[in-house]
Amino acid sequence: MRMLEPDEIEPLATGAWILGAGGGGSPYDGFLNLRRLCRDGVGIPLMDPGELDDDDLVVAVATMGAPLVGRERLADPELSVKPVRALEDYLGRRFQAVMPVEIGGGNGLEPFLVAAVTGLPVVDADAMGRAFPEAQMTSFSIHGLPMFPMALGDVRDNAVIVTRAASWTWMERLSRAVCTALGSTAPTAKAPRTGREVKDCAILGSVTRALRIGRTVRDARARHDDPVAAVLEAEGGRLLFSGKVVDVDRRATAGFLRGGAALDGVEGDAGSRFEVDFQNEYLIGRRDGDAAVMTPDIICLMDAESGEAVGTETLRYGQRIGVAALPAPPILSTPEGLEVVGPRAFGYDIDYRSAFAEG
Amino acid sequence: MRMLEPDEIEPLATGAWILGAGGGGSPYDGFLNLRRLCRDGVGIPLMDPGELDDDDLVVAVATMGAPLVGRERLADPELSVKPVRALEDYLGRRFQAVMPVEIGGGNGLEPFLVAAVTGLPVVDADAMGRAFPEAQMTSFSIHGLPMFPMALGDVRDNAVIVTRAASWTWMERLSRAVCTALGSTAPTAKAPRTGREVKDCAILGSVTRALRIGRTVRDARARHDDPVAAVLEAEGGRLLFSGKVVDVDRRATAGFLRGGAALDGVEGDAGSRFEVDFQNEYLIGRRDGDAAVMTPDIICLMDAESGEAVGTETLRYGQRIGVAALPAPPILSTPEGLEVVGPRAFGYDIDYRSAFAEG
Repeated sequence: MRMLEPDEIEPLATGAWILGAGGGGSPYDGFLNLRRLCRDGVGIPLMDPGELDDDDLVVAVATMGAPLVGRERLADPELSVKPVRALEDYLGRRFQAVMPVEIGGGNGLEPFLVAAVTGLPVVDADAMGRAFPEAQMTSFSIHGLPMFPMALGDVRDNAVIVTRAASWTWMERLSRAVCTALGSTAPTAKAPRTGREVKDCAILGSVTRALRIGRTVRDARARHDDPVAAVLEAEGGRLLFSGKVVDVDRRATAGFLRGGAALDGVEGDAGSRFEVDFQNEYLIGRRDGDAAVMTPDIICLMDAESGEAVGTETLRYGQRIGVAALPAPPILSTPEGLEVVGPRAFGYDIDYRSAFAEG
Repeated sequence: MRMLEPDEIEPLATGAWILGAGGGGSPYDGFLNLRRLCRDGVGIPLMDPGELDDDDLVVAVATMGAPLVGRERLADPELSVKPVRALEDYLGRRFQAVMPVEIGGGNGLEPFLVAAVTGLPVVDADAMGRAFPEAQMTSFSIHGLPMFPMALGDVRDNAVIVTRAASWTWMERLSRAVCTALGSTAPTAKAPRTGREVKDCAILGSVTRALRIGRTVRDARARHDDPVAAVLEAEGGRLLFSGKVVDVDRRATAGFLRGGAALDGVEGDAGSRFEVDFQNEYLIGRRDGDAAVMTPDIICLMDAESGEAVGTETLRYGQRIGVAALPAPPILSTPEGLEVVGPRAFGYDIDYRSAFAEG
């Protein structure tokens, strides 16, 4: 267990945003909140999953909904704690630690806000190794762990607990209906996990990975190097396209942000076009009509100058973008993993082909 | 406390259906279930509200949703118990009695099904004195009692508890979203009430009133008298129109059954037309374009021959109908009551005028 250093907050936000594959919500408000809290002297303990006792109880938190709507409401650390307390009251037990459901985007910072208010340590792990739009798209689901009870809160005095769900799909459907009724954004606390379950079934070291990526970007900038190239080299990623955004189609619908974007190539990619589809996160990328990258590979659109991630809700005409793929946690591309997060899970009639297949 | 007699089940169903104002769902499946349970020797205690201890805990049950959809699923007594058990588990306390939220329609029989399975007594009271489509339309709401926690169950293994709601409207919105996701019908257990709250804030004697109306219909039939006239005489009701259904417009939408119907007059009403609007329940009736009756008066459409109620989901072309008004519990037409269940609460820009105003 160690304390998060104040100068780690910015790299954490940068790295989480890149791992978000366009989703997980902008980390900017969370970053501002965390910086303020740390300046106020609040310490946030970060713990290795190996330090968890087997029967510790861990809560996984995330804000659910359409990222575009999330941007319209300022993040309040107290708000993120509401569903955690609701779940504790329901269980009649206190949690020993908090972790992100998804390290990607603002949701990667959410457990740190909860930790700042509650004093709980943040576990260096998540359940996606990136961000995904739906509740069942986690390593816990792939491992067959139960999905209930889960709690949703909101800025008013509403709270809902899904105490039983017939399946992960039912959990997604019920919680999405509540989230939509609450205004298409809601802080949530997912089914409690034991320390043993986290050690066996979570994606370990996710916070460390986000911190590392963020530091790589920061250091490259300081050296006036290309931050996109630096991240890809350090993380074994692959540059797929350099281009300029020429079209964005985006709509907030039924609790998701859906749409697509088109980029015209520049430099070596001049004359080519790259298209991406998204449902909160980037799902598939096509170069001149041919699938070049697809979920669960982490599709990153990064600002070519700063190396900052460009989210599905911040994408806009004229941006200069490096489109890259980062490898996803191996469990996501197993047959069991692909069933839950592969292209077919999103309705694409296509077999998963790794962007790293040809080395 | 006394046991419900087997020969009371049919009058209970008939009376509840008439008090339903077209809604509350058909009592037919519940009637069949109750008859079978009583034949199997199950006894159902009926208790006067005065017998409740002040700190007894009472659960109010109802099936929520569009009656038309409810008809497509057979009522299973065990199903109605699911949200009751979910709420008990949440509270960490057992209930001492069960009551209907609305005496109207199948929902008037629902607590008897719960009682048959659990052994709990049914309290002779409800919170509407009829049926209404929305969660906040109760005497508990008019008295300002809290609306949470409330539980929803379903035929699969789903269960949801709204643990907090910012208002009755939020409770309606959240529970309706869950109900719709569950297929537009769901058994529910509403916020627990103490014995004191039931005695002070419920509509007392509702079960007795339903039984009395049902017996009046049965006895009139046995005497070959007009059952509609018999009910109106015994209950202080008023016949508004005799006619034949010539048009029905009905749609299940967003968890409700909405629409309207038109009747052409017969006998003394020949040459006139009567139109009714409904949202699960009949809301307003117009004779030749002029409002003749409106909520909260209990608008009953009864089969002219049998005296059986005709629900908004069983209304069809060609039926011979007596349209009548029965007086609603007085609290519903107080200023506080009208705010919650008067015509304006349903979007009609019209002041409530009692169908009994002219004596």
